[in-house]
Amino acid sequence: LANKRGTELDRLRLVLVRTHNPLNIGAAARAMSNFGVLHLRVVRPYDVAFREARSAVGAAKLLKDAPQFDSVAEAVADCSLVVGTTAAENRELHHSLRRLEAGAKLIRRELQSKNNVALLFGSEKRGLLNEDLAHCHWLMRIPTRDEHGSMNLGQAVAVSLYEIVRDAKAPAAREKTKAANAGEVERISTMLLEALRESGYLKTSSLPADDKIRRLVRRLAIPADDAEVWLGILRQILWKIRDQVKSTKR
Amino acid sequence: LANKRGTELDRLRLVLVRTHNPLNIGAAARAMSNFGVLHLRVVRPYDVAFREARSAVGAAKLLKDAPQFDSVAEAVADCSLVVGTTAAENRELHHSLRRLEAGAKLIRRELQSKNNVALLFGSEKRGLLNEDLAHCHWLMRIPTRDEHGSMNLGQAVAVSLYEIVRDAKAPAAREKTKAANAGEVERISTMLLEALRESGYLKTSSLPADDKIRRLVRRLAIPADDAEVWLGILRQILWKIRDQVKSTKR
Repeated sequence: LANKRGTELDRLRLVLVRTHNPLNIGAAARAMSNFGVLHLRVVRPYDVAFREARSAVGAAKLLKDAPQFDSVAEAVADCSLVVGTTAAENRELHHSLRRLEAGAKLIRRELQSKNNVALLFGSEKRGLLNEDLAHCHWLMRIPTRDEHGSMNLGQAVAVSLYEIVRDAKAPAAREKTKAANAGEVERISTMLLEALRESGYLKTSSLPADDKIRRLVRRLAIPADDAEVWLGILRQILWKIRDQVKSTKR
Repeated sequence: LANKRGTELDRLRLVLVRTHNPLNIGAAARAMSNFGVLHLRVVRPYDVAFREARSAVGAAKLLKDAPQFDSVAEAVADCSLVVGTTAAENRELHHSLRRLEAGAKLIRRELQSKNNVALLFGSEKRGLLNEDLAHCHWLMRIPTRDEHGSMNLGQAVAVSLYEIVRDAKAPAAREKTKAANAGEVERISTMLLEALRESGYLKTSSLPADDKIRRLVRRLAIPADDAEVWLGILRQILWKIRDQVKSTKR
């Protein structure tokens, strides 16, 4: 499965258009490496020394291998789907605009159909220009809040790639902890009840009161590995209480 | 709905523990502001000047308001769920480890139950230490690839918050473009067929060949707003072809 996913992501090209800050190109490269998207393309970067970006921790090769283009047209020539990213929700757009959640689904589908996909990010200040958008089939927007929509480039790349590789079917809970079984829980409950009676917390032994405590203990969901420790603690407390009782009687 | 979501996120505290680089604290603050998570807490940052971080574009107030603590215990005291983040998948952990997709669901559920939740991020180099993890109910991991698991702190914060605020039910396609209706498409097809015959692309008028072209046009999904433009283009081409034909006959 991991290999199949890898082959699909191998058809995704991330295209940075007129990026000003080499640190941002480096940050984008690092996020790409984190999520297994390894084809970076750069269109007219402002700083020719971008390949030395120190922010590309663990992604130096990816950055070195990134081909450089003079135009968006050349950078996306081998892609059958070209998606632009934008921070603007209400901008005058001549394209369909999709939220990242929905757009990522369509991108995954295209990759699964063995087609190359280009994902475009514009410059830090102005984003993608109309001449870049002319090459896009549709646009995608990260759901940031209206009051502060504009994301840092490296963070926008990370979030976008995460959504494309995320697994909607990830198990809801992968518990490492095995819960204590009913017998252990009952032993703990019994010992706690004894301690509560000895301590005077429970005046008499009434079934409703006892059951209330039992339910209290069960709601703890005690891990199996911890059951013995809890029994030890209660045993010690019980011993101490009884010792106290004895002392005061003396 | 947006307000309800806002109230829920108001119960989420993002806690940065022993962060070295003020730029990273600033980047975390910016991502928080982007996604509407406004309560930052800082435990023992290495640089006391972190509040001046220039990377906090648009989030200076959030950064200024961030209370500073001496210990994780104090920073999470008002939270009923404390979640630690980790890059390590196979580390010797005494906690349940959940993928971000699954963990975010549980965090959302807790916030909806009107409980405060703390989300902890450790230092850039060593992450959260065992003494920090002791305060966590469980741990969460961003699904990066094994070969390069460690993310930049600002990017990890952005991805985590995105997953917590993302909308699983976002509409799959919010089309701005209305497709041309069947009549318009047929007019375009007819004119194209005429042009193809006049140009010699189609030798004779055969029904199978014509239908092939009709299907070709229908697969274009021409937007309604563009139909007239396409007709105009074809009309012009057709006129030119006929003109040529006339000239050569002369």
